[in-house]
Amino acid sequence: MDQIVVRVDKQDLEQFVTQVFLGVGLDEQQSAIIARHLVLANLRGVDSHGVGRVEIYTRRLESGLVNKRFEAKVERESPASVLLDGANGSGIVLATKGIERAVDKAKQAGLAVVGIKNSNHCGMLADYTMYAARQDCIALAFTNAPANMAPWGGRERFFGTNPFSYAVPAGDEPDVVFDMATSVVSRGKIIIAEKNRQRIPLGWAISKEGKPTTDPSEALAGLVLPVGEHKGYGIALLVETLSALFTGAAFGPHIGDLYQDFSRPQNVGQCFLVMRADLFMSLQEFKSRMDQMIRQIREIPLMEGVERIYLPGEIELEKTKEREANGIPLSLEIVDELVRVGKRYGVVSHLAKHVG
Amino acid sequence: MDQIVVRVDKQDLEQFVTQVFLGVGLDEQQSAIIARHLVLANLRGVDSHGVGRVEIYTRRLESGLVNKRFEAKVERESPASVLLDGANGSGIVLATKGIERAVDKAKQAGLAVVGIKNSNHCGMLADYTMYAARQDCIALAFTNAPANMAPWGGRERFFGTNPFSYAVPAGDEPDVVFDMATSVVSRGKIIIAEKNRQRIPLGWAISKEGKPTTDPSEALAGLVLPVGEHKGYGIALLVETLSALFTGAAFGPHIGDLYQDFSRPQNVGQCFLVMRADLFMSLQEFKSRMDQMIRQIREIPLMEGVERIYLPGEIELEKTKEREANGIPLSLEIVDELVRVGKRYGVVSHLAKHVG
Repeated sequence: MDQIVVRVDKQDLEQFVTQVFLGVGLDEQQSAIIARHLVLANLRGVDSHGVGRVEIYTRRLESGLVNKRFEAKVERESPASVLLDGANGSGIVLATKGIERAVDKAKQAGLAVVGIKNSNHCGMLADYTMYAARQDCIALAFTNAPANMAPWGGRERFFGTNPFSYAVPAGDEPDVVFDMATSVVSRGKIIIAEKNRQRIPLGWAISKEGKPTTDPSEALAGLVLPVGEHKGYGIALLVETLSALFTGAAFGPHIGDLYQDFSRPQNVGQCFLVMRADLFMSLQEFKSRMDQMIRQIREIPLMEGVERIYLPGEIELEKTKEREANGIPLSLEIVDELVRVGKRYGVVSHLAKHVG
Repeated sequence: MDQIVVRVDKQDLEQFVTQVFLGVGLDEQQSAIIARHLVLANLRGVDSHGVGRVEIYTRRLESGLVNKRFEAKVERESPASVLLDGANGSGIVLATKGIERAVDKAKQAGLAVVGIKNSNHCGMLADYTMYAARQDCIALAFTNAPANMAPWGGRERFFGTNPFSYAVPAGDEPDVVFDMATSVVSRGKIIIAEKNRQRIPLGWAISKEGKPTTDPSEALAGLVLPVGEHKGYGIALLVETLSALFTGAAFGPHIGDLYQDFSRPQNVGQCFLVMRADLFMSLQEFKSRMDQMIRQIREIPLMEGVERIYLPGEIELEKTKEREANGIPLSLEIVDELVRVGKRYGVVSHLAKHVG
């Protein structure tokens, strides 16, 4: 995040982003879904997947690379599975619909899988698994992404940062929510560093020529490294298989780059695996067991220099509370970008007061 | 592996191990399942999960901590799910039965989940996912394990090395088979290092006092570290949730140690998630897509110093071929241990010729 920071109220921001997407030509439902999603990412502190994406999303919609109006088609369906052809619509809208269907199916069948092909960048996976956890389900979510990671041992892009997320409902304790890129860091974090003109730590990425780099631009032109070496590679391959090979989406280098390839749709894939949390015991018992584990983890003695053990999702939950109270911090650079995009669609925002 | 190595024919070894378990009092089916599993681990080069486990398995069976004769009970069942109460039987036998049921259910319902509670150490997870892949299914397998990893930021054992495995069927290419511990390395690898009197690399584990160590005994008394720091912690928590919280098995530190706790059964849990690979397209098409991805990965230019890119499971497959041809290399220490265990049950083996 930039040194110069503006705090923006989440409702103002969500309303502004909704207006922008309405301006682009999306309907109200789509605009609201995308705006809520992006602002949620900022609220959780996942700024790499927040409103910093408005510019590129609008640009791709504008140029027809993502369909503004589309009808997702159920291509295959069974009591426990759905394959959606996303008709090249917004990835966030498709994934939102997809997880809803997965939860509905899982409620009936016990567990369910939903695959989506011909989709697009779907933002922060945790949004979808969190939804399922609120519906008392355990969920796993997978999506592939434009190639910028090599298989372990290679020096050419093949896999995306291929994130996966899971969420598990708890009782009195907050739901457990985990979301990781299979790279050491997400590409989004490097984009933010570039936007904010910051260097990145060594070990995150290598340059095009295969050399370690701290320059975000070099890293973006080069390759990010998989977490845990061959282990991250193996997980990235699983994510690719479930979200793309299995669903019929494009895989590996066949996905176009979100920022650089304006010649064709991306054909990203998503996959959601959802189970009722009470499949093997009462919901109350399951949740109370989760609560018990969470509390026991919190009580573990700390390593030197550590203030506290966080459960997955807890940092993001506390950030959400703080940002809901004090506003979402945005760098002037991103505010400026939003104001410019807004102007393009005749959306005037009080954000404008922050920029010259 | 020790410097002094004996090569043993896989069939001889499997027969010997079968005899040992028959000697302990298991029936023929159980003995054959366990022997096949352990020898398969050695064949694949996963020596940490191979016949080096015969001694501890027999000891626990002998002392009644694992039931020699048991009837696993179906506690809950739906068209897509089964919860097995393992009645404290052999983990390898239970997991073998469990994955078979998961595949049967998945063939009918499209996908299925099988949970097992009151189970024991189930060896090498890849055995189970590979079986599912041979049946044209995509499988994920999870098991928890005795605590020896702290949540990220803690310095007290809570999670096991909590492995997870997946396998995906391919067409002309070998199936993709991945199996990882969520620790930097499996505890089994450290046990092997201790048996072979080798030091371990820095970064694998910390001592009881929370200090980095290269001494396998110190590491075994201390903690192994999660792979990718908080990411490995998050995955370990998922494995714990699916295999234990969800199934009703013991979780975290409530699992007894395989080697040190002879006061009670372990109550380990397992969880298998299995889907038909042809849920969303024809099997032929899916497999041909997998083949295509595998070949494209192989063609990627190599990083300096790398001879070849391996697909997950490929190293193990080649090792299997080599060991099937030339015999399984065992350290004299392990041969000696096997001979001693054999003698205990009146099983004479030509292995004995290798030791004094």
